[in-house]
Amino acid sequence: MKIEVEKINELIETKKFTELKQTLLEMNSADISLLLDELNKNEAIKVFRILPKEKAGETFSFMEKDMKEKLIQELTDLELKNVLDELYMDDTVDLIEEMPSNVVTRILKSIPKEDRKTVNELLNYPEDSAGSIMTTEFIDLKENMTVEKALERIKELAIDSETIYTCYVLSTNRELIGMVDIKEILIADRDKTIKELMDTNIITVTTSEDQEEVAKTFDKYNLYALPVVDKENRLVGIITVDDAINVLQDETSEDFEKMAAMSPNEEGYFETSVFKHAKNRIVWLLVLMLSAIMTGTIISRYEDAFAIVPILVSFIPMIMDTGGNCGSQSSTLIIRGLATDEIEMKDVFKVLWKEIRVSLLVGTVLALVNGIRIFIQYKDIKIALTIGLTLVVTVALAKAIGCLLPMLAKKLKLDPAIMAAPLITTLVDTFSILVYFNIATSILGIK
Amino acid sequence: MKIEVEKINELIETKKFTELKQTLLEMNSADISLLLDELNKNEAIKVFRILPKEKAGETFSFMEKDMKEKLIQELTDLELKNVLDELYMDDTVDLIEEMPSNVVTRILKSIPKEDRKTVNELLNYPEDSAGSIMTTEFIDLKENMTVEKALERIKELAIDSETIYTCYVLSTNRELIGMVDIKEILIADRDKTIKELMDTNIITVTTSEDQEEVAKTFDKYNLYALPVVDKENRLVGIITVDDAINVLQDETSEDFEKMAAMSPNEEGYFETSVFKHAKNRIVWLLVLMLSAIMTGTIISRYEDAFAIVPILVSFIPMIMDTGGNCGSQSSTLIIRGLATDEIEMKDVFKVLWKEIRVSLLVGTVLALVNGIRIFIQYKDIKIALTIGLTLVVTVALAKAIGCLLPMLAKKLKLDPAIMAAPLITTLVDTFSILVYFNIATSILGIK
Repeated sequence: MKIEVEKINELIETKKFTELKQTLLEMNSADISLLLDELNKNEAIKVFRILPKEKAGETFSFMEKDMKEKLIQELTDLELKNVLDELYMDDTVDLIEEMPSNVVTRILKSIPKEDRKTVNELLNYPEDSAGSIMTTEFIDLKENMTVEKALERIKELAIDSETIYTCYVLSTNRELIGMVDIKEILIADRDKTIKELMDTNIITVTTSEDQEEVAKTFDKYNLYALPVVDKENRLVGIITVDDAINVLQDETSEDFEKMAAMSPNEEGYFETSVFKHAKNRIVWLLVLMLSAIMTGTIISRYEDAFAIVPILVSFIPMIMDTGGNCGSQSSTLIIRGLATDEIEMKDVFKVLWKEIRVSLLVGTVLALVNGIRIFIQYKDIKIALTIGLTLVVTVALAKAIGCLLPMLAKKLKLDPAIMAAPLITTLVDTFSILVYFNIATSILGIK
Repeated sequence: MKIEVEKINELIETKKFTELKQTLLEMNSADISLLLDELNKNEAIKVFRILPKEKAGETFSFMEKDMKEKLIQELTDLELKNVLDELYMDDTVDLIEEMPSNVVTRILKSIPKEDRKTVNELLNYPEDSAGSIMTTEFIDLKENMTVEKALERIKELAIDSETIYTCYVLSTNRELIGMVDIKEILIADRDKTIKELMDTNIITVTTSEDQEEVAKTFDKYNLYALPVVDKENRLVGIITVDDAINVLQDETSEDFEKMAAMSPNEEGYFETSVFKHAKNRIVWLLVLMLSAIMTGTIISRYEDAFAIVPILVSFIPMIMDTGGNCGSQSSTLIIRGLATDEIEMKDVFKVLWKEIRVSLLVGTVLALVNGIRIFIQYKDIKIALTIGLTLVVTVALAKAIGCLLPMLAKKLKLDPAIMAAPLITTLVDTFSILVYFNIATSILGIK
């Protein structure tokens, strides 16, 4: 990329526009969009204007929000109209949703009249629903068409369709009754009817379906496109696999953020302001900080114990950390399992039983290693026993809490991802300190 | 699903096989594979045997490892041959890689002679490389073919090709020189040549490319299929988008596991034995436990301080947890940013500067809330000041460590995901306890 930026800059400076155009035409639109990011604003606009209409539209659809906004402000009305002409409906709708209102007004004015109604309908679907990410440009066929006729229609509609790989067969009142892969059409005899070729066993989603479910459906059935129907089973749009991948990536990022105790954020790391970053992080930090005070209160109740055996205090971090880590391991596995549908609610006892067995194995090893170390270092079998026993109980508790809470969240229709490391750690801390001091006072005979 | 299982069971019991077959034909292969999981072994095999050849192959490719193994052991040689016939090369190779050796021997015997060489070649590519996930069934055209001629060839090859959506144009020595979308071929005049239609700006990967990079390439360029070439730019296979989604999901699960201090595991949660689960988790737990001992040692050095002011001990969990949580927030954002290529190595100072500003905002709020609470509860301005100051410094340190370590890991060509919550927490613990007792002894004037 580095070299290309320099080369492009040189071509602009020396006004070698024919050569510039040739270089750009040989580049992929996604790469041109990255290149524009590296150029300064004026040069970026110059380069964009050189692109032929179709390539310009494609490049535009790959751009980051900021670049799109900058560009729209510089384009003439006609240029903007040309770009919008090339965008598929779903991209137009995405654009409108992310632009500030003054830019939106200009965009809406530049959308061809016949598309305005569709755009408005798409804008009305709830955020993150199948309706909000679908596009309306697909190939529709009738069941009584011959293959010959169908091929003609595909040719007609191809330019404006986002995909021609799957064609949809509609009844006279636009109900979805079948689906044909372009492959089936190509290899069939010309006089066969679409009815003979079409597959009537169709996977569909409704417009209100959550986009995360949509993405999972793609993964489950290995789909390239997914038809979206309304309540009357009329085909209203399709979602293509590239959009499903974007959803999958966004939802994963959201899970990561939630699991690290942050409010999910749709914007990129650099696009988000310092203030907004702080806001996204502070709520959970406050909640968790105040919860940790509970653990502190418990500790202060045992002041006498650690006044008598001060070394007890020095094991607190180790016990807390180990408990927290064991809990996070379990909760992470369960959260991910629930997200990929590998683990279901009915598996709760199977999971618990597995985690308990794992925790006994893990707890015993940790207890032995640490018990032996402590015995060698302090020559005190009672303290070694205290720590060993505490570790076994803490690990078992941590793993039980770690696997049950995400499932409880799911049961309560909450996102399991909030029951991740930070919350689990704070909860496990409280329990592990209680366990620790109870075992310590019993074994060491202090009160 | 519940109802279908009962219905299928009933149809088997009452021996209504025609109706059973009809019901199965109306189901999607992915759903049939889930259904077989719910049936007992004998019934599952009965149902599988009823499926027509093509559907059986498709259903088989959706199955989990265990089901595949059970089934293969029951199938006759001819039945196994029929199933393998229907699988694409990449699925056959996956199957061989996951089956135990006695099953593999049977599979290799049942693969048609002409495919054996290809299978062996594919098996030789390193695990997780582009070569290991590609398939060899694609449509190849020549540049001097007319559209008419190309359509004939596509018809011929279509049945055995995993996708016909993109066709690849090869030179006489099988170098990849162009790519045509089936859409372009369909809408073009019959006497045009492929050379006129083909796109010469092709995104390719080499056989040794890491599968994670392959998946990212799909996402970056919105691809449906990606050609894989050898060192001489000869086309040796293609990867389709459904495989890319699987890789994306697997790599994400791996990141989640690493970030929760576990060794990554390719098998599912339930498929993995208790012993293996324990093994995957114990290594990091031991490392982290022993590191936490360092924090304990530091605490024990300040025995005198908390003997004089015992309340100091009760703040340890809160300071440790807050530090850990702040560090995890930053490390999670950076790890995810690096994984999606949003953050690059050159951004290190930009990231650090952003995190420092965020941490000052967040730290100040946390310090104020906690300082005020402590002042109200204990009426001790010095302790309030100690805790407040400790929080500000700890948060700043935690966020700096949290953002720098993943980038350092990347620089050292390690996976940034290992620098996640658990390790960051342990490190931040040590620092925060040091900061805490230093500030405490200074402000409270104890030694």
